[in-house]
Amino acid sequence: MSNNAQSLVQWARLVRFVSIDGSIKYGEPMLANENDDIHQLALDGQLEVIVLEGADVLSATPTNRKETVKTLLGPLTPKDVPYVRCIGLNYKSHILETGRPLPTCPTVFSKPGTTIADTNVAVPIPKIAQTQCDYEGELCILIGKDAKNVSQEDALNYVAAYTVGNDVSARDWQREPGKAGPVPQWSFSKSFDKYAPLGPALVSTSVLGAADKQSLKTFVNGALRQSGDTSDLCFGVKALVAFCSQGQTLQAGSLIMTGTPGGVGLFMNPQGFLHDGDEVVVEIEGIGKVVNRMQFE
Amino acid sequence: MSNNAQSLVQWARLVRFVSIDGSIKYGEPMLANENDDIHQLALDGQLEVIVLEGADVLSATPTNRKETVKTLLGPLTPKDVPYVRCIGLNYKSHILETGRPLPTCPTVFSKPGTTIADTNVAVPIPKIAQTQCDYEGELCILIGKDAKNVSQEDALNYVAAYTVGNDVSARDWQREPGKAGPVPQWSFSKSFDKYAPLGPALVSTSVLGAADKQSLKTFVNGALRQSGDTSDLCFGVKALVAFCSQGQTLQAGSLIMTGTPGGVGLFMNPQGFLHDGDEVVVEIEGIGKVVNRMQFE
Repeated sequence: MSNNAQSLVQWARLVRFVSIDGSIKYGEPMLANENDDIHQLALDGQLEVIVLEGADVLSATPTNRKETVKTLLGPLTPKDVPYVRCIGLNYKSHILETGRPLPTCPTVFSKPGTTIADTNVAVPIPKIAQTQCDYEGELCILIGKDAKNVSQEDALNYVAAYTVGNDVSARDWQREPGKAGPVPQWSFSKSFDKYAPLGPALVSTSVLGAADKQSLKTFVNGALRQSGDTSDLCFGVKALVAFCSQGQTLQAGSLIMTGTPGGVGLFMNPQGFLHDGDEVVVEIEGIGKVVNRMQFE
Repeated sequence: MSNNAQSLVQWARLVRFVSIDGSIKYGEPMLANENDDIHQLALDGQLEVIVLEGADVLSATPTNRKETVKTLLGPLTPKDVPYVRCIGLNYKSHILETGRPLPTCPTVFSKPGTTIADTNVAVPIPKIAQTQCDYEGELCILIGKDAKNVSQEDALNYVAAYTVGNDVSARDWQREPGKAGPVPQWSFSKSFDKYAPLGPALVSTSVLGAADKQSLKTFVNGALRQSGDTSDLCFGVKALVAFCSQGQTLQAGSLIMTGTPGGVGLFMNPQGFLHDGDEVVVEIEGIGKVVNRMQFE
């Protein structure tokens, strides 16, 4: 129990899945080891869970029933997530690759709840966003109760859990003046439907504490593209919750995507943008993998 | 019935108010003239309405009961609004005052639903946002049904109504590199709680069509600061709905704030930022006034 955070949820790990009866349920994975690959176990039909009951992930409570996961989904849906705050330029390695100095404050932008998508589903890439489609592997913070004017010391008492996300991005709409506008704002370029797939599980602060020493890797078609560690964050989980909650209510169920390390396609030489059918895997130590193919419309 | 839009709602104008019995209700104002001042009528205890019943503004339906409004509220609450898209630099006059060329695409950023506030309430200005507190009077579009990949020709069929909003902004957090970050994103600086007061009413497309010839004025403590007209928009209502809906679902209940004309405090000489107790009135022809005092915390 790191950092003395009081757990806001009654599970250590939560998955959302299609049951053998066809209904969608929550479950707590029964893992032999905490680094077991939830994604692979589910694919192999070997992911056993204790069924959790509740209207949403925050209220889900253990039952005494066990099941085998038929199809693993992402832990959250658009209706669960009122708002997604995103942090740009937060890994020192990524900042260095953009040629910028280290920031004194986080750069905050947003994605709407409609970007939330399951792991293992195709991410539809609209025609207008196919030229410079890129990935950003990110640690995501799930706010567990409304937080406003929270100190860094108190921040973890408002965090329920973490998951792995991909902040899918259309770089031309993010950066080119003719598309992004005269003062480029990143919101539009990252807000297409399903541009924030999440998975494989939510992992509680009771397991991960401040999630400050997790390795993060992103693979495209099996090739390693990003390799970072949350210990490299300029602004860690506690600092982000404290900063973002200044005068602003972070609603229970909302997310903070904490930014991405170096290695995005934009800054490769030559540039390594995504193509139709490419598979992106983002993996964070202690949480697992979110896996999605890009499907050009 | 301009522009042949099919109305998505069963009212021409909708107000939300505290009833004489203390409960909160929706009503359709009974106006002698369509330019009657709803704000002033309510203050004078002379705003008569036909009560509307329904779980939200989109489903509200006329009853045969009449009432007198006790206290006028804003038409929407944070729980009604899943997301607020905002457009920067959209009035030609405002773009010229910033010294920029006319854009080829809208600049899109966002505010969370927690910014939605009533007319006639104080807007709390947090300590960190008191140095350069500014106003932006804006026409707001209420999306009436989920819209995705909508053409300009079809756009009004997804718009339910319009209201008046103030996009309250902390200019230092929006612009200064030490605060806004190395690539200034506007989201944080405009997302403090209650930074999007709305009012006095929603007015249906059956009345305003594309709302493309409405004068807009902003007053601070009674002095005229902004004077524009929606005919001056680079990207009008139809263009914004079409642009923003490309690959992105604009959810029913979500808003698009269409940008502000010239005359904001930032670009006055000397600069005219807001102080504790200042009253900001934004008035749009055919809709009315949203009135709020700034309350420095």
